[in-house]
Amino acid sequence: MDFDKSLAVTVAAEYSNDQGDEAGLVEAFAEVCNFLADNPNSLSWRSKGNIPSVFTSSGLQILAQKYFAGYRKSDLPGNPRTVPDEIVSLAMMEAFGYAKQEVERIKIEHQLAMSAENCVGALLERYLDKELRPSGWYWCCGGFVKAVDFIRRDRQEQWLALQIKNRDNSENSSSSAIRQGTIIQKWFRTFSRTGATNWSNLPSLMQGYNLNEQGFENYVRSYISSERLRSLRDPGDILPLE
Amino acid sequence: MDFDKSLAVTVAAEYSNDQGDEAGLVEAFAEVCNFLADNPNSLSWRSKGNIPSVFTSSGLQILAQKYFAGYRKSDLPGNPRTVPDEIVSLAMMEAFGYAKQEVERIKIEHQLAMSAENCVGALLERYLDKELRPSGWYWCCGGFVKAVDFIRRDRQEQWLALQIKNRDNSENSSSSAIRQGTIIQKWFRTFSRTGATNWSNLPSLMQGYNLNEQGFENYVRSYISSERLRSLRDPGDILPLE
Repeated sequence: MDFDKSLAVTVAAEYSNDQGDEAGLVEAFAEVCNFLADNPNSLSWRSKGNIPSVFTSSGLQILAQKYFAGYRKSDLPGNPRTVPDEIVSLAMMEAFGYAKQEVERIKIEHQLAMSAENCVGALLERYLDKELRPSGWYWCCGGFVKAVDFIRRDRQEQWLALQIKNRDNSENSSSSAIRQGTIIQKWFRTFSRTGATNWSNLPSLMQGYNLNEQGFENYVRSYISSERLRSLRDPGDILPLE
Repeated sequence: MDFDKSLAVTVAAEYSNDQGDEAGLVEAFAEVCNFLADNPNSLSWRSKGNIPSVFTSSGLQILAQKYFAGYRKSDLPGNPRTVPDEIVSLAMMEAFGYAKQEVERIKIEHQLAMSAENCVGALLERYLDKELRPSGWYWCCGGFVKAVDFIRRDRQEQWLALQIKNRDNSENSSSSAIRQGTIIQKWFRTFSRTGATNWSNLPSLMQGYNLNEQGFENYVRSYISSERLRSLRDPGDILPLE
């Protein structure tokens, strides 16, 4: 079956006016679906119901909803929704000699630190999207593309793909589902053993866009402060991180 | 090829005197290798060099070394070997309003909390091994069996297998490599959303051994205090957690 890109564009246009910070997202969504048409095993679908098809209007509706919801959700670190394991606190007291009162504080701060880690991982993708989208890279946001974070086409219309991690010890999802012949390059931002960053080792596909640590740091600062303001104005709009 | 259990026992006997807290470990190692002979795809091998064969003396040597080293290594929470991501600290300051000085402290305590979490996960397996080994369960320690933590045989000599997690949100490794027909039961200790424990929902294979939270808590307390004493006597012997 041939992929109908204009149908994907039409569906996406119901979800976005494609202006401002969303400029280019309708095109990005359509191309991500085109990529999935070429690499059907790359579709990751954990929600209930049938796996949506990129060849039907109803399937594209479901994917567009996920895509734009993923784009618009807040990645501000939120209040933890999990309850700490009491035996972990016990282990901290026994192993490191912390007092009961201290582990109560640590338990909360540890959860906030995990929220902040998730936030940084999410903002790394947002930063790259902001810098790469104007150059024809499409962000696979919304969580339905397996093992690939950004795609684009080369001059021969072949797919190029990027997989991004915040640290060298973050787990890589297997990318075996990608069609052979697709160039996939991987990159991580920081070395866990040294704390050093890895911007000087960008893979060739990511070079030439002036990506760097200072730019990322500025992005994180500005994202968090503007999202905090937005959440004060409209608290119900902010989805907490898991 | 037929698996030669007596060869595995002979090899393992070079590594353990099979007494005291190691009583039954030689048998356990031999049975784990027998399980791998029946389920070759369950062997997980990330080290360099060829994948060891459970059918050869040299292969069994390599596995026995891993098995007993895994058993004897310390799971005391150690000093972190990773360096925190500075942008995570920045995000904590920006999102939660912590001062620079506070995030410096949190960064360290967060790492110790992660060490303690790893420790609790490891001690859960050690506790279960202690309670289950006398009843013919074999612990798959040493990190070379994929997706299975404990095995035993039923009366028809079929394999029974357990997969254990500390929390319901810990990642499960896929167990698709297990031969069809093998009964595999999964269990997690705690509910991340409520903090409640799950001992009252042990799968049938784990019932009847008087496993419970108080027993686990006592085990954690006693393990950490005796390992701390041991590490004071012989500091070089303690391997830090990752």
